[in-house]
Amino acid sequence: MTAKEKLSALRAEMAKRGADILLVPSDDYHQSEYVGDYFKARAYISGFTGSAGTLVITAEDAKLFTDGRYYIQAERQLKDSTIDLMRFGTEGVPTPTEYVISLLSDSKRGLKTLAFDGKCVSAKFADGLRAKLPEGTTLLTDTDYPALIWQDRPALPASKIWAYDIKYSGKSHTDKLSLVRAALCEKKCSALVMSSLCDIAWLYNLRGDDVTNTPVFLSYSIITDTEDKLFVNLDAVSEVRPSLEAEGVSVYDYSEFYAELEKLSGASVMVDKSAISEAIVSALGNANVVDAANPTVILKARKNQTELENTRRAHIAEGLALTKMMIELKYGDSEHDELSVEQRLISYRRESAQRVGVTYLDESFGAICAFGPNAAMAHYSATAESYSKIDKNAPVPMLLIDTGGHYLEGSTDATRTFVLGDIPNEVKLHYTLTACGSLRLANLTFLEGATGVAIDIIARQLMWERGIDFRHGTGHGIGHLLSVHEGPNSIHWGRSAAKIEENMITSDEPGIYVEGSHGIRIENELITIKAMHNEFGQFMRFENITHCPIDLDGIDVAVMDNSDIRMLNEYHKRVYDTLSPYLCNGDKEKLAYLTRAI
Amino acid sequence: MTAKEKLSALRAEMAKRGADILLVPSDDYHQSEYVGDYFKARAYISGFTGSAGTLVITAEDAKLFTDGRYYIQAERQLKDSTIDLMRFGTEGVPTPTEYVISLLSDSKRGLKTLAFDGKCVSAKFADGLRAKLPEGTTLLTDTDYPALIWQDRPALPASKIWAYDIKYSGKSHTDKLSLVRAALCEKKCSALVMSSLCDIAWLYNLRGDDVTNTPVFLSYSIITDTEDKLFVNLDAVSEVRPSLEAEGVSVYDYSEFYAELEKLSGASVMVDKSAISEAIVSALGNANVVDAANPTVILKARKNQTELENTRRAHIAEGLALTKMMIELKYGDSEHDELSVEQRLISYRRESAQRVGVTYLDESFGAICAFGPNAAMAHYSATAESYSKIDKNAPVPMLLIDTGGHYLEGSTDATRTFVLGDIPNEVKLHYTLTACGSLRLANLTFLEGATGVAIDIIARQLMWERGIDFRHGTGHGIGHLLSVHEGPNSIHWGRSAAKIEENMITSDEPGIYVEGSHGIRIENELITIKAMHNEFGQFMRFENITHCPIDLDGIDVAVMDNSDIRMLNEYHKRVYDTLSPYLCNGDKEKLAYLTRAI
Repeated sequence: MTAKEKLSALRAEMAKRGADILLVPSDDYHQSEYVGDYFKARAYISGFTGSAGTLVITAEDAKLFTDGRYYIQAERQLKDSTIDLMRFGTEGVPTPTEYVISLLSDSKRGLKTLAFDGKCVSAKFADGLRAKLPEGTTLLTDTDYPALIWQDRPALPASKIWAYDIKYSGKSHTDKLSLVRAALCEKKCSALVMSSLCDIAWLYNLRGDDVTNTPVFLSYSIITDTEDKLFVNLDAVSEVRPSLEAEGVSVYDYSEFYAELEKLSGASVMVDKSAISEAIVSALGNANVVDAANPTVILKARKNQTELENTRRAHIAEGLALTKMMIELKYGDSEHDELSVEQRLISYRRESAQRVGVTYLDESFGAICAFGPNAAMAHYSATAESYSKIDKNAPVPMLLIDTGGHYLEGSTDATRTFVLGDIPNEVKLHYTLTACGSLRLANLTFLEGATGVAIDIIARQLMWERGIDFRHGTGHGIGHLLSVHEGPNSIHWGRSAAKIEENMITSDEPGIYVEGSHGIRIENELITIKAMHNEFGQFMRFENITHCPIDLDGIDVAVMDNSDIRMLNEYHKRVYDTLSPYLCNGDKEKLAYLTRAI
Repeated sequence: MTAKEKLSALRAEMAKRGADILLVPSDDYHQSEYVGDYFKARAYISGFTGSAGTLVITAEDAKLFTDGRYYIQAERQLKDSTIDLMRFGTEGVPTPTEYVISLLSDSKRGLKTLAFDGKCVSAKFADGLRAKLPEGTTLLTDTDYPALIWQDRPALPASKIWAYDIKYSGKSHTDKLSLVRAALCEKKCSALVMSSLCDIAWLYNLRGDDVTNTPVFLSYSIITDTEDKLFVNLDAVSEVRPSLEAEGVSVYDYSEFYAELEKLSGASVMVDKSAISEAIVSALGNANVVDAANPTVILKARKNQTELENTRRAHIAEGLALTKMMIELKYGDSEHDELSVEQRLISYRRESAQRVGVTYLDESFGAICAFGPNAAMAHYSATAESYSKIDKNAPVPMLLIDTGGHYLEGSTDATRTFVLGDIPNEVKLHYTLTACGSLRLANLTFLEGATGVAIDIIARQLMWERGIDFRHGTGHGIGHLLSVHEGPNSIHWGRSAAKIEENMITSDEPGIYVEGSHGIRIENELITIKAMHNEFGQFMRFENITHCPIDLDGIDVAVMDNSDIRMLNEYHKRVYDTLSPYLCNGDKEKLAYLTRAI
């Protein structure tokens, strides 16, 4: 079917069921950042395959809302679909919620019923929408409209679930469960309902493969003082089921979740409304719903010593791979393009993992390999249809690589920008400001209790001085063999409020992007560790666990303060000391040169 | 009467009226930071004269709660009073509220009624207390207990109220009133009740002298869409009353306020519960009380061009006075002590004001002149009974001067620490870290929207790196011929949330304090101004309006980055260029030396 045919089939179903407006979001049943193919209904209907977008359909028209990352791709993919692109984030363009409200408020159009699948929007989104609905609106939330017309829909993912050994997780399910129960008790709740896949995978020390690059599995969990219920595909869980049951977990089929929810009637139930669906909260009907962050969020963000020690080793392998790639790109003879670099990096990663003695599993996200002006696009992704060759004679011959691996030992995420030929002075300035910003943040000492709001300016100060900024956060938390984007820690001067606590791992990734010319980003991963303790309290600092040279061909020493130069030299000495034992003599020499003191 | 006799007289009154516990706070009827003598009931009863403290009296005992600034003074002043000192802020010591709750919860003691004067506590405090009271507690809030025993109580202050000319205020009362009414309209309120003295003085362009160093007058204001009522002492206001009435202000006597409040029954009334008394909110009885910051707070914080231009000139006079004091202290022959410096500074200020062509009125707060180890005490104040001589051969011969003036043109606040002999290397390090912190913040460029939380670390970074901190905010707003402490702007990594907006004036005052040895603080006043505007938005920066050398005898260049050296030299060049036209040749030469490039 074409997009037009799909729309008209959907409109027939809408008419049959009295739905004036249909909203098709991008969420799965678990409000995941990335979703399995089964849940890509918006992409199926519209043809637009970006990771974020909302489709709003009425009898007369259809609008697709997406953000700046995807304007160009969406334009291309929506051609001939009769769907209008709504460039969300552009001045004057409403949000999907605002647009839906305006439709419902337009008495001329007479639209009264709004339909969406309550399982595919968060309770928080639904609450926000409900607060603004004009009187007389009816919400229809129990029908999966796309399902009515989607004949070759992929099956629900059901990858094999495997046990994540305590030698990697560092803490048993039983121990984690007591911490969760203690948090429940503190909030005077008698039950916790969770649907967020990373939290469940962490709590049960299980992993799967239901979402690309995120080793999780479809699941729900209900925890009370005495019960510990896990809802998963029974075939997928069969191998680990006996050991789960031995730990006291009651294993149910994924489909039994809603029936079990009803048993919580009357209880005080903790749910995180931003991480759980409207359908679940609605099914909790008579329970006393307490909206609070899942206790697992902060518990899993504070890494334990096993996780930290293993992650450090994974980062050595990762840094080794990235450094080998750097050496090859800068000194090798092979022709490369954005796609071949990603592949070569994966093979370096396997090789390095073996040398370091860790186990590489998968990319932790689709790598961004972006040459020249491509690097100015924040979420650029090379495809077989469209990619750039690496040309050392290009106007700005730089390659930005933002990549990471899932290792059994932990997940990595790092960015380097390599200088592969002559670059203009202004680009060197940008490179140096980015490098200094990243180094300054990595070398910061701060008092315990400081948030990501309070420390961000350290990475931006030199840029702001020159009227330059980057439009993304400076840092995000990272999961341990889970999602590479994890809260609550993050670093942004105007957004995050969470404290940067001991044993959290947070990225440090300033950048500068000039459209049509170049993009630079330097990303390190930082473990928060204790510094001195005295009458002023506990000071904290960071351990930088990313090991790969910052390209000195991008550095203009004249821009740097003497402390910047000292920090860069110290960092490079550590990179050399950490990686050189794993390198052959030729590469060792090249690394020595790449990390020479300036 | 002795404290003991006063307590027993009070207890007799409590018994007569059935009050089990009496709480005597430090507030006046306007929740002012500093209060007139009429309101110093806690000091009258206990003998403790510090600016902050709460007294809690029962039939058996009496406790005085005060903070770390006043432990030593309170210990001395409470001797023989039978009042126990509660060192608020020390681990394990309850807050007055916690203590009162614990008394009321102790069934053995059987205390059931709590009395305090509802006019002398904020509505926010009372709300917080009420939320925690054990069931069965009775609150008695309509009696001024101290009044029952205080025979020679000072009269309510009633200084002459004078008009603050528009050539200084920059905006007429009528214009300010429309802005306030617009804010009311936005919040869908039909009335505003204000009792905060600085806000009222600002709104009506009036000044008085009811509080030491703060040119305000006792007053209330009620504003509706059509009414504009000012409540003041009718004698005090007599001279300006005709012009007020010509502007449409209805002038009432201070005592008529509560009767007028009753007329707001049924209306939506905006009050700032942290800046208005419990008694007022309680008198609003049937009105719909909307708790919101007074709209005047943000309006008066955003200075207008007249205020800014005049304040700049006041700061030239102030800087000149402070610089002359510096020259005298460093190169003069006169013997000095902490008290004589304050007096000499006042005469320099008068002289400088004349030379610059501005009008000096008064100190904007009691100056802190603290020599050697005295400077380590945050709120040190020399008295005729206890002060230090300035001895250039002392172990750490440094003098900290934190001082400011009220000029007709605006108020100033600045701190310098002068080095008057040889100081140890560690002290030089501390001096340099403080100077760099202050300079770095003053030279910061930041994106519009950044708060005091986001920028504070710039001043602390070098200290934190070495495990040093200072336990006060880095900056506070400052009033225009009003209080030197003004919100909403402030700078602190863990406290303030207000944006640092264009045309606000904020102090920049890092410090380092080592008990028993020395204290260093360097304070400049900064106007927020616009920097570049581009695709990233509006960048902001600061104009430093404080002009006085940073003592180079305290500077260790080895600790500084090259950018720190550049900023210090640039600052000193500006100080020289600004002040030298007003100096005789001899002083001009000395200033040239004090501001030489390093």
